[in-house]
This record gives sequence, C-alpha cells and structure tokens, in this order.
Amino acid sequence: MSDDIKILIVGLGLIGGSYAQGLSKKGYTVYAIDKNPNSIKYGVDNNIIKEFNGSNNDLIKESDLIILSLYPKDNVNWIKDNKQFFKENVVITDVSGIKVAIVDEIQQLLDNAEFVPSHPMAGREKSGVENADYNIFKDANFLITPTESNTKEAILLIKELAEALEFSNIEIISPSLHDEMIGYLSQLTHVIAISLMNSKDTEHMIRYTGDSFRDLTRIAKINENLWSELFILNKDILADNIDKFILEMSKFKEILVNEDINEMKKKMISSTERRKLFDKR
Amino acid sequence: MSDDIKILIVGLGLIGGSYAQGLSKKGYTVYAIDKNPNSIKYGVDNNIIKEFNGSNNDLIKESDLIILSLYPKDNVNWIKDNKQFFKENVVITDVSGIKVAIVDEIQQLLDNAEFVPSHPMAGREKSGVENADYNIFKDANFLITPTESNTKEAILLIKELAEALEFSNIEIISPSLHDEMIGYLSQLTHVIAISLMNSKDTEHMIRYTGDSFRDLTRIAKINENLWSELFILNKDILADNIDKFILEMSKFKEILVNEDINEMKKKMISSTERRKLFDKR
Repeated sequence: MSDDIKILIVGLGLIGGSYAQGLSKKGYTVYAIDKNPNSIKYGVDNNIIKEFNGSNNDLIKESDLIILSLYPKDNVNWIKDNKQFFKENVVITDVSGIKVAIVDEIQQLLDNAEFVPSHPMAGREKSGVENADYNIFKDANFLITPTESNTKEAILLIKELAEALEFSNIEIISPSLHDEMIGYLSQLTHVIAISLMNSKDTEHMIRYTGDSFRDLTRIAKINENLWSELFILNKDILADNIDKFILEMSKFKEILVNEDINEMKKKMISSTERRKLFDKR
Repeated sequence: MSDDIKILIVGLGLIGGSYAQGLSKKGYTVYAIDKNPNSIKYGVDNNIIKEFNGSNNDLIKESDLIILSLYPKDNVNWIKDNKQFFKENVVITDVSGIKVAIVDEIQQLLDNAEFVPSHPMAGREKSGVENADYNIFKDANFLITPTESNTKEAILLIKELAEALEFSNIEIISPSLHDEMIGYLSQLTHVIAISLMNSKDTEHMIRYTGDSFRDLTRIAKINENLWSELFILNKDILADNIDKFILEMSKFKEILVNEDINEMKKKMISSTERRKLFDKR
C-alpha cells in the first residue's frame, strides 16, 4: 500500500475508528465521513483522522481506498447514493459480518470501481469511536472474500491493508464459505448465549458463578440493532444450524434420562477430540 | 484452623494435590492416600505432602481433618470402607460438584464424625497431581453446603480451610440450591459446549475462528468419567434445564424464520440486561 494513498472511512464507529487509528499511527492519510459531526470532531481532536476542508462529495472524489464500516444494508445504500462521486478505479472494502447477501448487490452497482469484500473478526463490547482501539486486531483473523469479478491487484491492496493493521492471520475464502462458517462459529454461538441467559431467572445465582459461565455468556451482551440485521441476512444458514444444535441437545437429554452412561461418554470423547483441533498452536 | 492439625487428603489428583500444595505452603501438616503409589511419591518428592511411615489405617486414625477428593460415589464408598478407623470427632469435607445425591447418605453413615460438604469451584483442563496448582483457587468461589446436622464449629473449620487456600469468595448455601445452581451454571453449559462441538463437522473451519468460539467451547474438552457421573447424579435438574433451554432456542428460531425483528431485539435486550448483572464489580 503506497504511502500517498488517501483512505476514506465511511462510518467512524468502533471498527471504523479502530481502522483509522491504526492506519494513522502507521503514517497513512485517513479521512472519515459520519452522520454524527461529534464523531468526526472526536476523530480529528484525537489524531485518529485528518480534518478535510471541503464537502463530503469532494472528499469522496479524492479517495483511493474507501472502507465501508456502516451496518451491512447501510453500506449498500451509501454506495447507491454516492457512487457518482467515486474516483476512477477506486477500491472499496467493508467490514460486514455477512457476505452473500450484500456482495453481489454491491458489485453489480459498480462500473469504474472495485469492491473487495472483507471481514475483520474483531470487536469490543463497547461501541463508538471513543472506544476505538487498533490493538483489537493484533490477535484477530482477517477474512477476504473475493468473487470472480475481483482483480489480483485489488485483493492485494486489501491484504496490505490488513497487514498494516497487524491482523495476526489473513485468509482468503469464498463469500459462501464465509457465511456458512460465521453462521456456526459466530451467529449460532450468539443465539446460544442469548437463549442461555433467557432460559432461566438467574438473579439469585450471581454471587456463586464461576468463570466458565461468564466466558460462555459474555457475548449475550449484544448490540440488538446490528445483530438482528446480521441474523436475518444469513437466516437460512443460521436456522439450519439452530435445528442441528437443538437435535444434538435433544439426543443428549435422552441419553441422560436413560442413564446411558456409555453413550454419554462417547459424546464427551467426541467433543473433546473435536475441540482439541481448535487449540491454538 | 490450628497449626498442629493433621490433614489427610484422600485422592491426590489435580484438586486434592492443589489443596495439599496450598496447605503445605502455609505450613500445615498434610498427608495423602491414593491408590496410585506414584502419585504419593510425586507428592512427597515435590513437598506437596509429608511422607507417612505406617499403614493407611494408622494414618486415618491420626487425622483431624479428612478431605475427600475422589469422584462422588467413590467418596461414599471410601467412607463405608474406612469409617471404623476414624479418630473421634474427625471433621470430613469433600470437593464434589454435586451435593444432594451424596450428602445425606454420607451423613447417615457417620456417628462420631462430622461431614461438612463443600465445593471448590475451580479446575484445570489437565488432571493429576503433576498439574496441581493452588493458584487456581485465587479467583474462585468456595461453596459450603451444610445441613441441619452440622455444628457451627465444624462449618467454621471448613471456612478456615477455604481461607487458608485463599479462595476469593466463600458462600454458605443449601445442598439443594447448590445443585439447582450447578445444574444451570455449570452442567447445562457443559452440555451446550459438548453439543455445539458435536452438531457440525468443523474441521474445515479451524483456521478461521475467533476467540468467542474458543471461549465458549473450551469446556467441551471434558473428563468423561467424572462428568457422566456428575450429570447422572443431578439428572432431574439437568434434564429440566436442557428442556427449558431447548424451548428458548426453538422460540428464537421461530422469531428468526418469521423475520420478527422486534421480538428478536427484545430477546437481545433481555439477555444483555441479565448478563450485565454477572459482570465482576
């Protein structure tokens, strides 16, 4: 990624702000657009972004790399509303947690611009640019999910973006594998945490709990606006994952009620072996 | 707890060994019995326990405080086999993760000895005295679950035991509240982690996962011999918790399939509020 590239963050929230902060620290020129002028002011005052003297339209016209960090559907709408201002051959990426539902739609909207979808697998429980922290990327995966319409050069630029942000691992996979995986590893686990908290009145248990329960339910604290959109945009995969998981829980309950200790041990040996593969090497 | 008390650990594994290590560091006199002579040798060689020159029967006769750290049913059987050697007024405790199924049975076996049930809510993924580490207690809860047959003095002794081991929080609750709570906070969460790992072939996802999934499934690596016994000894409560959780997951799936975004947000707001109560203060 050349030093004189002009980078535009659209949506200066937690993730957009953390991108801007990390890139500015590396010496890149980063501007931002946000519907909330206080977020822009905070970004400028804290050296997260540079101040731009001019209209948003002029800023878009000068930008070489645009990073969409709005909610998924808002990204699509922003492109519709602003593509007439795009610089020729601008490269655009996003930070969305779902891909199939938006990638084709965005790519079909563009002619002299290229959209390379990507997903930084990082976050915090807090939102807003005030909580921006580029250190959240240091132990995280960065997934690039290109399609046949993407060029090698643009994919390489997004890879360099991820390297500049110091993601620990960068992977290139298809949008459909991305959504299948996220539907299980991330979305199903969030539905589990939500349902676990909602399945029992737990207030009288607060003083007695251990760290396992805290770990497992940390993600039950969830941004309902973002996640309800993500879930619905990946509805079929997520619903299928919920079905398969419920079936597995039901089998376990039957084994328990029958006191079928051998089958129970088999389930535990299987989960132990599968989980070991996920240990960090 | 007076300095000249003689403490006997029955079952020198991970938890028994960690008790022994922590108590020896504080200057207490700790002995152990284990069916595996190598565990005793390791304990003596590493200053975790003192060497006893004599028979196990003689050792039991001299012990003022006995800590049972075998599996739950083995604890009951050990008492049956050895109670004729107990010193008059010996105090006995255990480390078992279930209570109702064993507490009455043990207390009814004893005449000139007192059993104060307790549960250190700590552990590691590894087992055996070689992995003993008394630091696992520093952030952990210690639950004492006495019955009407217990004396204030014996409960106080077990409280002092937990203080000597530097547990961060000591609570006194009934055996039935203990089992209700453990059936949800610990056992249900383990069944969830086991079922999540078993519900999908995940090998192709290993390189892409984030820390949330790792946190949530860490407990899917499980000792099948211990946990199958714990689950069956708390069967009715655990089966009821599984039912309620499956019902909640099914409701969420219906909301998702119907794209009922308002109901979905309500579920997320509710889980967020409930989970916030569990944040450490």
